[in-house]
Amino acid sequence: MPSSKKSPAKRKSFAPLIYADTQKSSDQLYCGKFFVPDAFISFRKGRKWIAVLNQLEYGRALRESSFDEVLPLEEWIGIAKKETKGGKVGIPRVIAALAKAYSIEGFKIASDFPAGVAFSLMDLGLELETMEGSLFPERELKTEEEIAFIKQGNRCSVAGIRAAENALKASAIKGGKLYLDGKLLSSERLREVIEIACLRAGSISMDTIAAGGDQACDPHCGGNGPLRANELIIVDVFPRVAKTGYFGDMTRTFLKGKASEEQKRLVATVGKVQKRAIAGVRAGVNGKAIHGGVVESFIKAGYETKRDATGAVGFIHGTGHGLGLDVHELPRVSVSSSVLRENAVITIEPGLYYPGIGGCRIEDVVAVRKDGCEKLSSYHYKWQIA
Amino acid sequence: MPSSKKSPAKRKSFAPLIYADTQKSSDQLYCGKFFVPDAFISFRKGRKWIAVLNQLEYGRALRESSFDEVLPLEEWIGIAKKETKGGKVGIPRVIAALAKAYSIEGFKIASDFPAGVAFSLMDLGLELETMEGSLFPERELKTEEEIAFIKQGNRCSVAGIRAAENALKASAIKGGKLYLDGKLLSSERLREVIEIACLRAGSISMDTIAAGGDQACDPHCGGNGPLRANELIIVDVFPRVAKTGYFGDMTRTFLKGKASEEQKRLVATVGKVQKRAIAGVRAGVNGKAIHGGVVESFIKAGYETKRDATGAVGFIHGTGHGLGLDVHELPRVSVSSSVLRENAVITIEPGLYYPGIGGCRIEDVVAVRKDGCEKLSSYHYKWQIA
Repeated sequence: MPSSKKSPAKRKSFAPLIYADTQKSSDQLYCGKFFVPDAFISFRKGRKWIAVLNQLEYGRALRESSFDEVLPLEEWIGIAKKETKGGKVGIPRVIAALAKAYSIEGFKIASDFPAGVAFSLMDLGLELETMEGSLFPERELKTEEEIAFIKQGNRCSVAGIRAAENALKASAIKGGKLYLDGKLLSSERLREVIEIACLRAGSISMDTIAAGGDQACDPHCGGNGPLRANELIIVDVFPRVAKTGYFGDMTRTFLKGKASEEQKRLVATVGKVQKRAIAGVRAGVNGKAIHGGVVESFIKAGYETKRDATGAVGFIHGTGHGLGLDVHELPRVSVSSSVLRENAVITIEPGLYYPGIGGCRIEDVVAVRKDGCEKLSSYHYKWQIA
Repeated sequence: MPSSKKSPAKRKSFAPLIYADTQKSSDQLYCGKFFVPDAFISFRKGRKWIAVLNQLEYGRALRESSFDEVLPLEEWIGIAKKETKGGKVGIPRVIAALAKAYSIEGFKIASDFPAGVAFSLMDLGLELETMEGSLFPERELKTEEEIAFIKQGNRCSVAGIRAAENALKASAIKGGKLYLDGKLLSSERLREVIEIACLRAGSISMDTIAAGGDQACDPHCGGNGPLRANELIIVDVFPRVAKTGYFGDMTRTFLKGKASEEQKRLVATVGKVQKRAIAGVRAGVNGKAIHGGVVESFIKAGYETKRDATGAVGFIHGTGHGLGLDVHELPRVSVSSSVLRENAVITIEPGLYYPGIGGCRIEDVVAVRKDGCEKLSSYHYKWQIA
């Protein structure tokens, strides 16, 4: 129910509003549970989520979406046109017409709501309340169904990582470089192997990382050119399940050939620290403390983190992040983290990066539970491939 | 140079500003020509585009991006902290600190700039000018390099469409359904075949359409379940080239088995109308006229477009759209189109949809030229597969 204009509780009656496609806005996907490639309006009135879709999407929305009601956009453009007496009708005027018809005085919007539309709505006399992040803070805590979807995402990650491992196993070393079926095994080719495996498992993997040697010391470098023997190769796979939109996110580090003592100690340390960090996750613990524990463990093991003008070495990123319909979402597990709540889903992915030795990152996904955590990803940690 | 506060030319000196990742904002990708998975600040001062990136992206940005200058985010958080005397520093305060240091009084933002950040900037005393669409209206007109990238995207589309055609050729008909290598050939399986071919060609194809029969009468339905003999199958492939971010977009319609007279006439009509529409494209022609010509041709050929409560049949979408770093961008080729300008790149994709007969869409991509247009996609139009 909309409250009166002067009520102090007024802001609470603001209706949540989204104008986005489901590729760019996970809120929109969360809301309607179906994919639309172009931006569209959805809003809540009372307990109903209502979507306004053009004729191209209308029928599919009725059949496939979880919206409580679907309105035809063309009809509402007509209504808005009447109200503006023939003036130009864009999305803001359609939203204004909806607000009038549904007795909505103002809207609650996510921080990533398009500013152009927001300003136009204000010009049309509508009030807006902006949320700090998502329109659905509850997205941070997953239902058991969502947790099952994320597990499926991680099974897709495993399909990719396993394919990479098999390619490395099947490869031969010639002049220090890796060859598969007689042809050079480059980062690009290994990435293709991974992404095809992800596709076959029902997911799309973008920005896949398959980087070796010093390249892997840049944690967002995807890798390019030949992969070499005796170098640490980071394989980070975060595919999105085509059917649900939920992500998996796992990393393993491999080495084909013979590892040096330095490399062995590096990988063993990351493995131990990751295991300990996971053991520390439970509802009520601050993510900052988990991250702080990782930082401290690396220092104790003699791995210094340093930054200078040429770059940074050591443990140069956060310990983890929330995972769901976005590959990076709340909560963070880093210096800017807060208390982890039950059913949050996070990655735990410590790493060490030293050009000359190489980079190692090991990543799994866990659901925060009352007395600990549940691992949502599962793959072995053997890393040396002869 | 920033002009004085009272100058009438003031708005012109506003500095363009982006805060987005390159997945959600093609403006950001257009600007820096490299991929970053998390939102970051970039802005123009004089002739320089400046990006502000955290340590994870900093080195890669220096090496790979086309930004004229890259600033370390951590340093600017420090500067903003000093200025706010220890208060909480988010992105808006960092932007305000940059504005102060670079003598910028206000920013020009795209309509999809995040409203949350926009409102905070205004609270901090900065003025904003909102563009109607992209921050770069020039994105509508492509350089020859961009046209080459889009051609490459269409070669990836062809890889997918050819793979689909080959799968249909190799399939057998049993009980009216298609089988490949003894296993049912479903829409899902055909989509996998297409997407693997696109991956191998260096691109990622999402939301691929491989829909048959009445399903294909819903132009955004991807298709699911068995593909059947004697049914029109629409294959619409719009992959994004991994290296450049540019899209291809092509559609062909196939039929495995024996076509009915109605189906033959439908496909022949769409083919003829598409060819004629392409022949009409040249700089200076209004996209509305191209679309109107298609509408008229279909009516003349006896194909009526009707809408009722249960849906729509006939020619139920626009004739085409701009293509580039977004799969749908300006200019439109529809009722809301304007004059086509030289070097715009558009799709021409008329279609007819009649449940019972099926759907047919044929799509190619052209660059608008002075005296005509250049086809940027190339694949045959044979559609009947015995």
